[in-house]
Amino acid sequence: MSSICRVFVLRMGHRPVRDHRVTAHVGLVARAFGADGIYLEEHVEESIIRTLRKVTEVWGGNFEVNTVYNPIGFIKSWKKLGGIVVHLTMYGINIAERPSLLTELRERCGSILVVVGGEKMPREVFDLADYNVAIGNQPHSEVAALAVFLDRFFEGRELVREFKGAKLKVIPSERGKIVKRVTENEA
Amino acid sequence: MSSICRVFVLRMGHRPVRDHRVTAHVGLVARAFGADGIYLEEHVEESIIRTLRKVTEVWGGNFEVNTVYNPIGFIKSWKKLGGIVVHLTMYGINIAERPSLLTELRERCGSILVVVGGEKMPREVFDLADYNVAIGNQPHSEVAALAVFLDRFFEGRELVREFKGAKLKVIPSERGKIVKRVTENEA
Repeated sequence: MSSICRVFVLRMGHRPVRDHRVTAHVGLVARAFGADGIYLEEHVEESIIRTLRKVTEVWGGNFEVNTVYNPIGFIKSWKKLGGIVVHLTMYGINIAERPSLLTELRERCGSILVVVGGEKMPREVFDLADYNVAIGNQPHSEVAALAVFLDRFFEGRELVREFKGAKLKVIPSERGKIVKRVTENEA
Repeated sequence: MSSICRVFVLRMGHRPVRDHRVTAHVGLVARAFGADGIYLEEHVEESIIRTLRKVTEVWGGNFEVNTVYNPIGFIKSWKKLGGIVVHLTMYGINIAERPSLLTELRERCGSILVVVGGEKMPREVFDLADYNVAIGNQPHSEVAALAVFLDRFFEGRELVREFKGAKLKVIPSERGKIVKRVTENEA
């Protein structure tokens, strides 16, 4: 994989209140599974943005949280700047049926924008996307689709990476809940 | 993998209203990623159960949706009957650091209960579980944890499996949204 490969997530179709937790989960998954940042729609609840920034402050890493006013316009600019757009949708090409897709993506790389949404994505997203990718062709969840896509894209390496500057760190354990406070020297 | 390997999901810690969408996503993911059924707590909204049954009716498969009154008691019975309990938690053994865990699970197999919850899982679950497994040790989402666990457990085969008796089927496409109505002869 090219060392300059950066992955961002664009979360569309957020419905205030109803999608509060799901959008927060999309953001947490983006961070935990190795994305560099997330773009949320401007109308998302402030509390989601606060949660994501707080988690990054406590658990480390350089995860960026931003909002966009016009997601379609944003996708167009991304492409104009030479970025690649991957739209995760149950109607797309099944990732399990075309593994070459990931190899191709890793080779092209540069800046990848992974677009996820709910049921009603505008037609334009399907047209603008360089790849419409299905994590299986069954209805399920944008949270799950994003996690599995990133897990396969990064080949599992994202789950063992260090999050720089973390104040808290989990010590994996068979049966306990062990959280270590990281001192400044270690961070 | 033993052919009699059955996987069920137990979703704990559901908070009405607030977790409505997340619990629905946990259920949809369980089905789409190859679990045989889900156990929900008795106090979940009726509409979640209806949605999951409706999806199974339309998109196929034999996914079972049940509720339990006492999740801890249920876990104890599961173990008494010889079933294996896997608890997904960010505090557990990182699946990416111990891949042998999946091999071991596949060999033991039989009936696996995958327990997922929110932030505040009772201590007892950690003690009762045969395996406390982390999908990475960062905070993220029970929806994502379940999806990645099942994707790795079934080695991706779950994403191409047939859902018997489906009335609708997606025809994967580069750019479209193609859904085929399945006639009774084909189903």
